[in-house]
Amino acid sequence: MSTLAFDFSKPVDFVAIGRLCIDLNANEINRPMEDTVTFTKYVGGSPANICIGMSRLGMSTGFIGKVSNDQMGRFITRYLQQNSIDTRNVVTDHSGAVTGLAFTEIKSPTDCSILMYRDNAADLLLTPGEVQEERIAEAKLLLISGTALAKSPSREAVFQALQYARRHGVVVAFDLDYRPYTWSSDEETAVYYNLAAEYCHIVIGTREEFDMMERFESNPDKSDRVTASKWFDYRAEIVVIKHGKEGSIAYTKDGSSHRARSFKAQVIKTFGAGDSYAAGLLYGLMKGWPIERSMTYGSAAAAIVVSSHSCSDAMPTARQIDEFIESSQADE
Amino acid sequence: MSTLAFDFSKPVDFVAIGRLCIDLNANEINRPMEDTVTFTKYVGGSPANICIGMSRLGMSTGFIGKVSNDQMGRFITRYLQQNSIDTRNVVTDHSGAVTGLAFTEIKSPTDCSILMYRDNAADLLLTPGEVQEERIAEAKLLLISGTALAKSPSREAVFQALQYARRHGVVVAFDLDYRPYTWSSDEETAVYYNLAAEYCHIVIGTREEFDMMERFESNPDKSDRVTASKWFDYRAEIVVIKHGKEGSIAYTKDGSSHRARSFKAQVIKTFGAGDSYAAGLLYGLMKGWPIERSMTYGSAAAAIVVSSHSCSDAMPTARQIDEFIESSQADE
Amino acid sequence: MSTLAFDFSKPVDFVAIGRLCIDLNANEINRPMEDTVTFTKYVGGSPANICIGMSRLGMSTGFIGKVSNDQMGRFITRYLQQNSIDTRNVVTDHSGAVTGLAFTEIKSPTDCSILMYRDNAADLLLTPGEVQEERIAEAKLLLISGTALAKSPSREAVFQALQYARRHGVVVAFDLDYRPYTWSSDEETAVYYNLAAEYCHIVIGTREEFDMMERFESNPDKSDRVTASKWFDYRAEIVVIKHGKEGSIAYTKDGSSHRARSFKAQVIKTFGAGDSYAAGLLYGLMKGWPIERSMTYGSAAAAIVVSSHSCSDAMPTARQIDEFIESSQADE
Amino acid sequence: MSTLAFDFSKPVDFVAIGRLCIDLNANEINRPMEDTVTFTKYVGGSPANICIGMSRLGMSTGFIGKVSNDQMGRFITRYLQQNSIDTRNVVTDHSGAVTGLAFTEIKSPTDCSILMYRDNAADLLLTPGEVQEERIAEAKLLLISGTALAKSPSREAVFQALQYARRHGVVVAFDLDYRPYTWSSDEETAVYYNLAAEYCHIVIGTREEFDMMERFESNPDKSDRVTASKWFDYRAEIVVIKHGKEGSIAYTKDGSSHRARSFKAQVIKTFGAGDSYAAGLLYGLMKGWPIERSMTYGSAAAAIVVSSHSCSDAMPTARQIDEFIESSQADE
Repeated sequence: MSTLAFDFSKPVDFVAIGRLCIDLNANEINRPMEDTVTFTKYVGGSPANICIGMSRLGMSTGFIGKVSNDQMGRFITRYLQQNSIDTRNVVTDHSGAVTGLAFTEIKSPTDCSILMYRDNAADLLLTPGEVQEERIAEAKLLLISGTALAKSPSREAVFQALQYARRHGVVVAFDLDYRPYTWSSDEETAVYYNLAAEYCHIVIGTREEFDMMERFESNPDKSDRVTASKWFDYRAEIVVIKHGKEGSIAYTKDGSSHRARSFKAQVIKTFGAGDSYAAGLLYGLMKGWPIERSMTYGSAAAAIVVSSHSCSDAMPTARQIDEFIESSQADE
Repeated sequence: MSTLAFDFSKPVDFVAIGRLCIDLNANEINRPMEDTVTFTKYVGGSPANICIGMSRLGMSTGFIGKVSNDQMGRFITRYLQQNSIDTRNVVTDHSGAVTGLAFTEIKSPTDCSILMYRDNAADLLLTPGEVQEERIAEAKLLLISGTALAKSPSREAVFQALQYARRHGVVVAFDLDYRPYTWSSDEETAVYYNLAAEYCHIVIGTREEFDMMERFESNPDKSDRVTASKWFDYRAEIVVIKHGKEGSIAYTKDGSSHRARSFKAQVIKTFGAGDSYAAGLLYGLMKGWPIERSMTYGSAAAAIVVSSHSCSDAMPTARQIDEFIESSQADE
Repeated sequence: MSTLAFDFSKPVDFVAIGRLCIDLNANEINRPMEDTVTFTKYVGGSPANICIGMSRLGMSTGFIGKVSNDQMGRFITRYLQQNSIDTRNVVTDHSGAVTGLAFTEIKSPTDCSILMYRDNAADLLLTPGEVQEERIAEAKLLLISGTALAKSPSREAVFQALQYARRHGVVVAFDLDYRPYTWSSDEETAVYYNLAAEYCHIVIGTREEFDMMERFESNPDKSDRVTASKWFDYRAEIVVIKHGKEGSIAYTKDGSSHRARSFKAQVIKTFGAGDSYAAGLLYGLMKGWPIERSMTYGSAAAAIVVSSHSCSDAMPTARQIDEFIESSQADE
Repeated sequence: MSTLAFDFSKPVDFVAIGRLCIDLNANEINRPMEDTVTFTKYVGGSPANICIGMSRLGMSTGFIGKVSNDQMGRFITRYLQQNSIDTRNVVTDHSGAVTGLAFTEIKSPTDCSILMYRDNAADLLLTPGEVQEERIAEAKLLLISGTALAKSPSREAVFQALQYARRHGVVVAFDLDYRPYTWSSDEETAVYYNLAAEYCHIVIGTREEFDMMERFESNPDKSDRVTASKWFDYRAEIVVIKHGKEGSIAYTKDGSSHRARSFKAQVIKTFGAGDSYAAGLLYGLMKGWPIERSMTYGSAAAAIVVSSHSCSDAMPTARQIDEFIESSQADE
């Protein structure tokens, strides 16, 4: 059991800040995008997916972000509302920004790529003054996502959100979600990821993402334990390092490490695996479950999403996950 | 009959320079875009549409432009080639630019709008040095389009193309195609539109587009004749001013004006009407037809396109236009 | 005698458009700038210098430009007024731009360099709408300078000024004044220099500047005659090509070429030679003098300026030039 | 006596990071800049001035910064070296940046202003990777200055320097030095000032600068004590709040506050007062003097500098300060 100090007197379970975008998923799959003709529109963006996932799992949720003042922005806000997510802090841009897009290409279940449109994206224009302190103060858990750190003023909005979280005793989870295309330089990336991680109680990322953060440090063996222990000197209680097919490992401040079973899935595409995993994991941690059980729940959620065409729209309910786990055979 | 001095010894009929983009047309029509779920992908951009139109009409054609180094760019180049358009001067960007997008929304046949993605668009990165003098020298007619003037270096590429056209005796048509969103200011727009129009033999635009160009001039009554006569002091032979539903009027250097019949169509959307009109008109002029007949041909092409779901893909062949004219009842 | 069609019914002799800046001339000369300690402030910028020169020669003059809203901008405007230059069209910037600076370094009379500050310079922010048509309409001669073409919106302001000059029958002189540091690319430079030169009756530049303009053309021998004859196909009557120490050569539309004597000077620095030459030459042409005599007058003005510490402040009067010529021994 | 934990085993006393620029001080004073004609060149920039001050006081010092690749940059580096400052971490820019300039205007001893040139300034281009960890590791005290936080990548270089300081047990002083002109927004300013201050042991600023930092907080009475106590929750040991003519007040973590005498001076201009004060204060703190004595030393240094024409060049030696204090009559 983790030592995360959720304040259960707070009325809202979960609030996420950051990217809201549109996925345009190729309908004709198992071919290059040059040969696809039609696309289906979904809400996307890592923190949006996780928030939708948490809401599907029955948590009371809210989102802090910015959308374009057009049909895409209105579609996003409406979809969040349809998923019972509080959108009072979803601000509408008035500078002519657009919604970020992600066209997905599924050449095969294991060969997936994304064509991103991130220029002049509304979500990166959220300002610190637009972050409502009350939205954070009332939440048990705040999720931040690395992409929101990529540019000003969204970057400052996240740091301001972190100040509010500290001021009001809100647990913070950091999904590294590093996307190189929006950053100016690797050095800049490392500096801000490290600054933000100092504030966080739960840090989740891939080995490669942690390597990027250790640019100015010494961890020659890329040791997970060295990586994790650095953050326990700050506020971290749990550090999860993902190793793709080899599974994830969670370190806790007490020095122990944890692994969980993974599931066999009928993989259509790999997109959304990380977001659904995060939702399942955070859900378990908020329920007070042991870390292994929380990780297993995340893995099951991921297995469900990768066997579906969409990400956000495929986020499972607790009943779906329970049934999936029951009927599944774990890989060893 | 016009006095356009086409050099029929040149081996290529038609070359266009400028925007190449992707249209994403809502499949579910007669509703706001918030309620559409799937989109179909087509090649778009006014000069691309006109070039495809000319090629469908049997002309030998080429394109001068720039595409992104990704699936969208490759799709565009392949589609042009499939339509028998010479793509030797379609350059691939290597700076990380994207393909411009146009999401179409068809609320009703008369209430259509476009959501544009034009930030960091590859087509605006064509440089003057990338324009192949030989491509222009070998063509009878060069088409330029106003959107390519919106930003450097594409703007300079167009001016360089105009120099080559003058150097090699190529007739130039200017489709004004004014799109406010890519321009910095109305004044800048007016300056470059006027500079470019000085080089052109055929100028085609709406009344509103010509108004924009007359920002620093005196034409208080917005007189079409005053507008047209200015350009006859430069190189223009034909000036076509479009008045939407009231039809178009063409002025020629000899002082005469010309109108043509229009056609009743089963309108699905209005997009593509101008481009198909331009293709039909230019085709007629190159055939040496009287202006009225050329205008009628353009109107018929437009009527065919607006009754279809796409723009580029619906560009008609000469046989389709001929059959349409035969079977149609003209509106009076 | 030239065939320049000055309209002598116009009330103003000369109007210049373009750069207004500050020269900060090292007081301690014949050493590197690292060793200089104090600087003296002068008004600078090629068209400003020429305009001051014309005013000193007794011409009625005006300036079209933009200055910063600070002490530097006010100093410039006041200095122009003290030199009897009409400043009604010297606009004050309100965007926070600064005045361009030129720190001069005089290591030896023949080894001079300039350290430029051109970022966010107010003069490049002049807009086409700020150019007063009346200022141009009332002038016999308009001078444009290449540096003003380097960036938008100043670039468009110059093209709009050229439109007004054509509309009102104003003779136009183009001092190429190419400064690489403010331009984005050589190709862009060539395109706009050529576009602007098409409008001009007098074109003055160095061989290197004309080479830059011929980037997209064929003049393999860098022939002055080939260079000059191109512009006679447009509006040019006189093309002056400067060859540094070997002197200048002027071509006229009738096919003749002209050279003038040069003068021995006590050279302190080379700055300002071109501007004073232009002022003397244009003065002579406006007086109706033969080209040779005009060129000689320019050379004498240049000899006076290079033997002084400043540029603008050293611009000579007609009496000074006359006395200098009388007392001088010409070099052969 | 303060509780600052200087590590006296470290070989270097003091290292500063940030702005290096040029002051151009009007030689003709007591008049508006429009009426000044000559300027004298000095090295400037708040951290540069403080570093020069520390070196004059006999401390071993170094600087971490970036200079332009031109005469101005070379002048700065040479001047630092002449003042016995280690310049191994003064990097030369190769992107074409310039040195920031500050033209001073002294209308009267109490009416002074500065005209800044900060566009494309080399000092703001220092990258995190260019900061030498060794330079910080070997120093007892690191000084950071707010202006270096104004833009990327200099902003990230400062945060990286703060990481190194923490890693190696270096005391950090933060001179707020807020200059609005280089910042994008007040909100951004507040966010980064607060982030940086969390790392610092000594924070020095004016009441107005602390107000700016409290934008997202509650301190309705602008209480100095509230301001100071916030930082004692992080790493601060001393917070100095300056109230102009009313003098400064220093708070220490133990809850006490401290004031010092000020000195009567023959004021020529007010520039440089804060920098010399900081140098004197930090010198005293490093000597282990009581806070009051350190503040008095700072005040005496300031009184010496404001009665001189320059800032950097007037920074006093310890003997000058001692003699000044002896001979002075304190104001009450």
